Amino acid sequence: MRKIDPERQQAKRRQIMEAAGNCFARRGFHATTTAEICAEAGMSPGNLFHYFDSKSAIVEAIVEEERADTAAYFAALDESSDLLEALLDFLDAVMAFAADKTYARLALEIAAEATRNPAINTQMAAGDAQTRADIARLLRGAMANGQVDAGLEPEQAASWIVALIDGVFSRLAMDPGFDPQREAPMLRLVVSRFLKAGSAR
Amino acid sequence: MRKIDPERQQAKRRQIMEAAGNCFARRGFHATTTAEICAEAGMSPGNLFHYFDSKSAIVEAIVEEERADTAAYFAALDESSDLLEALLDFLDAVMAFAADKTYARLALEIAAEATRNPAINTQMAAGDAQTRADIARLLRGAMANGQVDAGLEPEQAASWIVALIDGVFSRLAMDPGFDPQREAPMLRLVVSRFLKAGSAR
Repeated sequence: MRKIDPERQQAKRRQIMEAAGNCFARRGFHATTTAEICAEAGMSPGNLFHYFDSKSAIVEAIVEEERADTAAYFAALDESSDLLEALLDFLDAVMAFAADKTYARLALEIAAEATRNPAINTQMAAGDAQTRADIARLLRGAMANGQVDAGLEPEQAASWIVALIDGVFSRLAMDPGFDPQREAPMLRLVVSRFLKAGSAR
Repeated sequence: MRKIDPERQQAKRRQIMEAAGNCFARRGFHATTTAEICAEAGMSPGNLFHYFDSKSAIVEAIVEEERADTAAYFAALDESSDLLEALLDFLDAVMAFAADKTYARLALEIAAEATRNPAINTQMAAGDAQTRADIARLLRGAMANGQVDAGLEPEQAASWIVALIDGVFSRLAMDPGFDPQREAPMLRLVVSRFLKAGSAR
């Protein structure tokens, strides 16, 4: 029997996720067939099904990767970090993703699928809760060092920052003139003014 | 031949839209049958089809009514209006709608349907563009009278206010703990701080 090489296994999974993501962004989740994903990934159906047993399983892996990447970003911050700047940098990264047409279309496809697929909805809601908790923790630190208005409630403020991120992706669906590259400084501005220590209420 | 009474016609249409909206919110747009809408509205299928030839036509009428209501709100403002306060009142009204569970579910159903139905997407995008234009016009007035930071670009600022509104409905889909009634003052706060005249950039 062949031994499983975890690194090779992971590389294959990533290759499929990337190929599937391209297909979903181009043709929509439902219109994409596994045959198309195989063609894009350059592998046989048997090989693909060895790694993922359905299209939904691929979406779940993409959502999980995104959750893990976001969690890793916030986990890497420590006492030496400029917390407010780290949050604003995170928002810049979100806008860079939003400016990537394939990523943006994929994000909208996955959000639409979450409205139909309770398993994906539950998974996305869990990732969302974690991101809010991570941002709330960051805000608490930034309040302690005087960077952020301590009159705000950290969990509640985190909700509104995440609402703005959601709003960016809705803008992409609704407004063809919304240019994430041009708008990135505005997201920084909206969040900076909202959080600014010493703001009048 | 029976004469058409426009008022009666309009009342019947509203009755169907309301019944259909309840059904869509309860069971989802696709799961709802026209028979269920007829039962909810207390009318026969023949009668219903006299007013709307499809479920999609009912959704289009609901979206159009919302567009018209929003446009009427902004059109009613004149030189005597406190423009910034009128904008913040509009945001309170949005949060009151978001707090209405039937309305919120219906809004999410319609947004999901817009991702699948290009006609509804086009219609929603047109309403969205009009709301942004109305808010931009209001902001221009509020800048002229010193209520809003004149360093902002009105169309761009309007986009971010609409992004926040979008974000509220995404929060309802993602976060069961998001309570629009509790959060209404926060939306006012985020927008007030963003727009405040004399803010540092």
